[in-house]
Amino acid sequence: MGKKAVVLLSGGADSATALACAKRDGFEPYALTIDYGQRHRAELAMAQKQAARFGAKRLLLNADLRPIGGSALTADIDVPSGRSAGEMADGIPVTYVPARNTIFLSLALGWAESLGAGDIYIGVNALDYSGYPDCRPEYIEAFEAMARLATKMGVEGKTAIKIHTPLIGLTKAEIFRLGHSLGVDFSLTHSCYSPAPDGKACGRCDSCLIRLKGFKEAGIDDPLDYAVRK
Amino acid sequence: MGKKAVVLLSGGADSATALACAKRDGFEPYALTIDYGQRHRAELAMAQKQAARFGAKRLLLNADLRPIGGSALTADIDVPSGRSAGEMADGIPVTYVPARNTIFLSLALGWAESLGAGDIYIGVNALDYSGYPDCRPEYIEAFEAMARLATKMGVEGKTAIKIHTPLIGLTKAEIFRLGHSLGVDFSLTHSCYSPAPDGKACGRCDSCLIRLKGFKEAGIDDPLDYAVRK
Repeated sequence: MGKKAVVLLSGGADSATALACAKRDGFEPYALTIDYGQRHRAELAMAQKQAARFGAKRLLLNADLRPIGGSALTADIDVPSGRSAGEMADGIPVTYVPARNTIFLSLALGWAESLGAGDIYIGVNALDYSGYPDCRPEYIEAFEAMARLATKMGVEGKTAIKIHTPLIGLTKAEIFRLGHSLGVDFSLTHSCYSPAPDGKACGRCDSCLIRLKGFKEAGIDDPLDYAVRK
Repeated sequence: MGKKAVVLLSGGADSATALACAKRDGFEPYALTIDYGQRHRAELAMAQKQAARFGAKRLLLNADLRPIGGSALTADIDVPSGRSAGEMADGIPVTYVPARNTIFLSLALGWAESLGAGDIYIGVNALDYSGYPDCRPEYIEAFEAMARLATKMGVEGKTAIKIHTPLIGLTKAEIFRLGHSLGVDFSLTHSCYSPAPDGKACGRCDSCLIRLKGFKEAGIDDPLDYAVRK
């Protein structure tokens, strides 16, 4: 059995691929899923399936971010639909959740320290990243530096603290190819911000559009059902 | 009305003083209290009273850290009792909660960003600090640097992000004198890690012992009832 690593597992395609990377790298994965009151709650069930598939221990933490507001993913703000690549590239979208990755990485850091693990995986990517500031390499490096000063394990120096971002330099197409090669079952992932009442992905939100484009470029069939698929 | 600032308010004596400092500095305070499953839950009610006293808007967030474990404050580990100052100075105690201040500051950062506020107050202090790594100035500076890269407000550069630590260089006695001068009612604060069934502070845990020593050195009477008070 390898060293333990905490993997942030949302139930989306990226974090499922990050989990597969942790396995590939020889770690014993501990999958952390956060129920933050996201409107796309279907991803929580997918996280459970991905964790089971890769033999990861699993923890679901509740940290309800809805009272904080400020995002279309947790508050009563419309999720954008049918935007072009140019529109998506223009600034930080309303689906940005204030400090979300910082909150998630902090919770992962707490669990990691309790497990005696210094390794954390997060499936952020900086290329096709929807413009979120907390998906960039310079942010991850700053978090890592902070984490070394924040924790008992960091101060004592016996456990190296490393935030692994295996997808950070990849395009969506490259992520899907990588996940595919590592055995990710993309039918058990959820990406849509605004699913239809029957659970189908909308096919129109930024996340669906980025996913569909990525699968197309990768030359892999996206196994999900979409309400609309051009 | 001044600029908004988010103040982390636990219900303890330090955070009540930090709230008073935010008022003194001209901010409109937004008090954030985290219910993390702490065994000393009595502090939550005190936080409410302190927020009301200083006219702060208040948000209680639930982020249950008990499943993470690793601390005498959230798991089934005994809280140390009757330790000398020398024993307390020897390493990081079992009451350390893995990554707690990082998790709290991250939640504060999320709320601050949603409010359009760049200022956050936290009542950490590095002198009589029980040996927690996440109470030191170098940690706070690293968090601040990370926060500037993590957030929309940080990246856009219109909102300056500042973590205020008005108590960081003070002794406990100096904190109590400062709080006293700013109108903190210390009868409405809770510090004990291990309260008696009747709600009285134990008088024996590190937190009680540090508090009692601080009040004594400050020459101020601690208005709390203690089960044991030497």
